[in-house]
Amino acid sequence: MSAADLGLPVAVPSTALFTDRYELTMLQAALRSGAAHRRSVFEVFTRRLPEGRRYGVVAGTGRVLDAVENFRFDDTMLEFLARERVVDEPTLEWLAGYRFRGDIHGYPEGEVYFPGSPILQVESTFAEAVLLETVVLSILNHDSAIAAAASRMAVAAGGRPLMEMGARRTHELAAVAASRAAFVGGFESTSNLAAGFRYGLPTIGTSAHAFTLLHDTEREAFTAQVEALGRGTTLLVDTYNVEEAVRTAVEIAGPELGSVRIDSGDLLLLAHRVRQQLDDLGAKNTRIVVTSDLDEYAIASLAAAPVDAYGVGTSLVTGSGHPTCSMVYKLVARATANGADAPLVPVAKKSLGGKTSIGGRKWAARRLDADGVAEAEVIGTGGEVPEELAGQQLLVPLVRGGEIVAREPMEAARQRHVAARAGLPLSATQLSRGEPVLPTEYH
Amino acid sequence: MSAADLGLPVAVPSTALFTDRYELTMLQAALRSGAAHRRSVFEVFTRRLPEGRRYGVVAGTGRVLDAVENFRFDDTMLEFLARERVVDEPTLEWLAGYRFRGDIHGYPEGEVYFPGSPILQVESTFAEAVLLETVVLSILNHDSAIAAAASRMAVAAGGRPLMEMGARRTHELAAVAASRAAFVGGFESTSNLAAGFRYGLPTIGTSAHAFTLLHDTEREAFTAQVEALGRGTTLLVDTYNVEEAVRTAVEIAGPELGSVRIDSGDLLLLAHRVRQQLDDLGAKNTRIVVTSDLDEYAIASLAAAPVDAYGVGTSLVTGSGHPTCSMVYKLVARATANGADAPLVPVAKKSLGGKTSIGGRKWAARRLDADGVAEAEVIGTGGEVPEELAGQQLLVPLVRGGEIVAREPMEAARQRHVAARAGLPLSATQLSRGEPVLPTEYH
Repeated sequence: MSAADLGLPVAVPSTALFTDRYELTMLQAALRSGAAHRRSVFEVFTRRLPEGRRYGVVAGTGRVLDAVENFRFDDTMLEFLARERVVDEPTLEWLAGYRFRGDIHGYPEGEVYFPGSPILQVESTFAEAVLLETVVLSILNHDSAIAAAASRMAVAAGGRPLMEMGARRTHELAAVAASRAAFVGGFESTSNLAAGFRYGLPTIGTSAHAFTLLHDTEREAFTAQVEALGRGTTLLVDTYNVEEAVRTAVEIAGPELGSVRIDSGDLLLLAHRVRQQLDDLGAKNTRIVVTSDLDEYAIASLAAAPVDAYGVGTSLVTGSGHPTCSMVYKLVARATANGADAPLVPVAKKSLGGKTSIGGRKWAARRLDADGVAEAEVIGTGGEVPEELAGQQLLVPLVRGGEIVAREPMEAARQRHVAARAGLPLSATQLSRGEPVLPTEYH
Repeated sequence: MSAADLGLPVAVPSTALFTDRYELTMLQAALRSGAAHRRSVFEVFTRRLPEGRRYGVVAGTGRVLDAVENFRFDDTMLEFLARERVVDEPTLEWLAGYRFRGDIHGYPEGEVYFPGSPILQVESTFAEAVLLETVVLSILNHDSAIAAAASRMAVAAGGRPLMEMGARRTHELAAVAASRAAFVGGFESTSNLAAGFRYGLPTIGTSAHAFTLLHDTEREAFTAQVEALGRGTTLLVDTYNVEEAVRTAVEIAGPELGSVRIDSGDLLLLAHRVRQQLDDLGAKNTRIVVTSDLDEYAIASLAAAPVDAYGVGTSLVTGSGHPTCSMVYKLVARATANGADAPLVPVAKKSLGGKTSIGGRKWAARRLDADGVAEAEVIGTGGEVPEELAGQQLLVPLVRGGEIVAREPMEAARQRHVAARAGLPLSATQLSRGEPVLPTEYH
């Protein structure tokens, strides 16, 4: 199933230059030495969670699959590489025929992860696999950071809907990916039209202060909006005086007014006052939407307030203090010679300075206690997963022989995340700073 | 002059959906009320700098111009908006003919800014100008955050070259913009091939630990690299044992070895040791490149070490603790009726809850003291800039009647930033936390 089969408009350009130059120079040198064709296993993992976070959220997997499929060097790119003397002629020829023909396993999108979790496992020749490092990390590091923040906000919001409104606070295309990752993490909708276009996410939004200020009076602005967008619209009530605005809004739209939005001030106080006023005016079904630099803590502080929906911007798209994850892409095993049958040996950086890693291809499983609650992230190298953990394995096939085998609608990732989070110990969803809620055990 | 005239490969798709839905619904309602055609002035500014920062750096202006030029709704987009019932038929027809025909003034790229600085000023009809809010803010908020971090790192590095290597830590296209913004802020080069392709930035990079681990011995790996990339290459020396690696490196490449790179450990200690070892081996011209989670403080701490170049990743592309700016796009003035001659009146949000702003179209100038050093950011509304400040005005024309009038090579922005920073009081470049180095005075 391709992305187009899911009914989504698809416009992924070639991803082949989302690559650090050293990947191509390593390729050239490895083609020269002959080691380029050794079978190799690269793994994506993180040595730690962001400080204080209790779990990570895998997001971007679907985008990684798009990126791998669209990783092709066209003539313009090859001319650029030749002109800039990035690599030599034999390497350019090899690149011209590049497509990834190997296997990729990984944690499915929406799954939670912990330090050491082998989130993605890329197996192919060194030459094919080394080129994917940067684009794979860009996607997973960005999207997982946003999804982790979104997940915490979803917990804080309880069942109330969350709307993503952060496009203006981040790069215009990062914003589209952020909407997508927020949806995986539990958001309902986005203000971002490009995210609606590209991923089919529900879009929302009605008006800003500028619309009220454009008109000679707030009454004229509200009247214009209700005439154009209907009584079910959301009126922004904090341009001049909230109490007056709410009165005017209900006068114009009647009790069928969809929502009012409050975008500044003491939201807790205002939500209570506005609810009371709306009820007194008979607009008992008119909802209250709040927006204004919300993060998971501000959302939690409004749990007892009569708020019907939250709009979140800056804090979401910047990962609520952690705008990136520290995922790395490391060679963990490679063959001792060329050919599909040469045995793999584990490899790892060993210098004393840090950044060491554990060699060998991993398996991973989440061990459950007697009540079915997760109690450890178990990671092994070499051999098979023990029988008692066989049912809780975390790595699934994503790409086989270059063919993508794990496309899925975004709703699947979203539901998987809800289920994965629900399987963690209760303390996972505390907002306070803490240790990873599961220990990582090496088998 | 178009971007293509600068000899750069250009591939900017339509930017029209990098838009929040509310901009289109406001348009629909304003078309209905008739106010859509009122002449309007929107301004981009920030109420504060990130905590502790002494100046901001304008970056992304060139990308804003590309975005405005490519803001067109094609059939696929219009079908999407129709299918999702974002706006009605008359609005879709209006959008089909959209192009920006107004004027834009702004701080030129690379200039510094302070709280209240009118960084960009968009004047057109409300309908034309309101649609640009999200894409303009996305670009300026992201790129300026990166450039501000880059500028601090450039100060910390003294004259030593800085290489941008952060693509893997941020969204794949945000990474390209980050390379560009880093160049504006003072970086010399980037690992990111897409940034080289798109903006003509110099690209760098040779090898990772994976390349050494792929080979049976470090000696084989170094030999392969030197054969493929020449003696001037950079060898990575911290895979196993730094001292052994340096010895092997010079044995293989001779004293003509270009550089060694150290990517982990105590960089201060290692730089001294490696320098001594290289000198003892006769490789006196071999440079030392350090990389490893550097930020401006780590760079500053290496000022006395024998380091020849710094590679910076995560900290740069996440704005060194401030991944976004808090720039907003506000309607500050609009006509009282349709038509080009209707008088403009200042407008501003007035609700007590905060987020208020100063109405009216601004002018801005940087007042200098007797020694020619900047002493205040002076911002006025209404009337002309006073004669004594006429020579220090900050706003320049960027777009006139829809035509872009201020394209420039990136080097111009880079040099402008060096000059602007040099014109600030000396305390501007202290890395310690502080207040904005210039007060903002309202005239």
